[in-house]
Amino acid sequence: MLNPSSIKALFFDVFGTVVDWRTSIARESAAILQPMGYGLDWLAFADAWRDEYQPAMEEVRSGKIPFSKLDVLHRRNLQRILPRFGVSGLDEAAMRHLNNAWHRLDGWPDATQGLQRLHTRFLIAPVSNGNISLMCGIARRNDFPWDAILGAEIAGDYKPKPRVYLRAAEAFDCAPAECVMVAAHSGDLAAAAATGLKTAHVARPNEHGPGKGEPKPTVPVDIAVGSFTELADRLGA
Amino acid sequence: MLNPSSIKALFFDVFGTVVDWRTSIARESAAILQPMGYGLDWLAFADAWRDEYQPAMEEVRSGKIPFSKLDVLHRRNLQRILPRFGVSGLDEAAMRHLNNAWHRLDGWPDATQGLQRLHTRFLIAPVSNGNISLMCGIARRNDFPWDAILGAEIAGDYKPKPRVYLRAAEAFDCAPAECVMVAAHSGDLAAAAATGLKTAHVARPNEHGPGKGEPKPTVPVDIAVGSFTELADRLGA
Repeated sequence: MLNPSSIKALFFDVFGTVVDWRTSIARESAAILQPMGYGLDWLAFADAWRDEYQPAMEEVRSGKIPFSKLDVLHRRNLQRILPRFGVSGLDEAAMRHLNNAWHRLDGWPDATQGLQRLHTRFLIAPVSNGNISLMCGIARRNDFPWDAILGAEIAGDYKPKPRVYLRAAEAFDCAPAECVMVAAHSGDLAAAAATGLKTAHVARPNEHGPGKGEPKPTVPVDIAVGSFTELADRLGA
Repeated sequence: MLNPSSIKALFFDVFGTVVDWRTSIARESAAILQPMGYGLDWLAFADAWRDEYQPAMEEVRSGKIPFSKLDVLHRRNLQRILPRFGVSGLDEAAMRHLNNAWHRLDGWPDATQGLQRLHTRFLIAPVSNGNISLMCGIARRNDFPWDAILGAEIAGDYKPKPRVYLRAAEAFDCAPAECVMVAAHSGDLAAAAATGLKTAHVARPNEHGPGKGEPKPTVPVDIAVGSFTELADRLGA
């Protein structure tokens, strides 16, 4: 269990934990491509784009390519998948608008209220692999009251590299044990715990589609909840 | 003049431009040291602490010492000036609380309302030499609705080095000419303009005491105003 009085900061994974990337990307892609005459399986398109995410970041983590912000990796991944779906000939403005679909993701229904409550008691920040401008776009759209935008871009590397978690704790002048990593993904939490952070699992059982998500953690965590509002209840916020 | 429709982001100098560091530091220092029996000239103490600011950063800018966040430089500067004022024997908790006086600065009277209006139309961020946690403390105290905390800590160097301004523009995916540096100090604005940013001067004529501040810019700027609310008026926010 977590003792709330020993905690100063909460760090949030964002894609899948705070926001529902899958239906948001499907909606945004359809809004751009349908008027051009395309009729794709939009959820499959979202899944295919997301499937390129880890391999692209692995090139940075392994040192094969220098750090590039996620918008750049998303764009490269988009160029890779468009031909598979038979989409071609988008101009620069359309490509940019489509790539920035990741800046226009919607929070899970409990996200805004939960974060606003947690903000009253704790420092809160995204510790995501998304870049700063992407996180700002999502925050404005959903009224997320972040104290700062931490994560990959200020660390110059991608989770689950230890540096990303530790750089966030340093930015808030906190010892790792004064920080909680909040995520819907056990791998993220295991990596955070290895650096000394506390961990909170939030179940997002439908992240990848109905029944395709983590209903509970597969690693030891300090607290497991079903929503951000339950997390606020449990932490007295 | 500035064309508001060509602008995406506003960057703010903070010490002296957004907040009144001088009377805030005097008040916070008195609140800690007076109960211990000290009766200093509190404004002189604030001025002396601030006088060490530029020389300390110059050691980083010149490469003499590695980048250290401003809290660290403030602490070293504090240790340097305390003996001059006859103060000694503070324990670690008192030293830390005193050093963190810089996290508890009050905005000028127009700051919060002006920033809240500007936020409705533009991305806004501090581009200050203050570190992230310091900026978060000030933001919470004053309800400043920053989109992100940019500035020295994410650039790894101190203004007026060009990198600090350019790193902020990159973080928001903006060209330099889509950003406006807002400051009460002509030197800051001249450096920002040299990197391609637009510039806005805000008069803070009493920053260093009555009549001791810049009533108007001493370099060419794109716009000069007397307050953040006037800036919001002029930029249609």
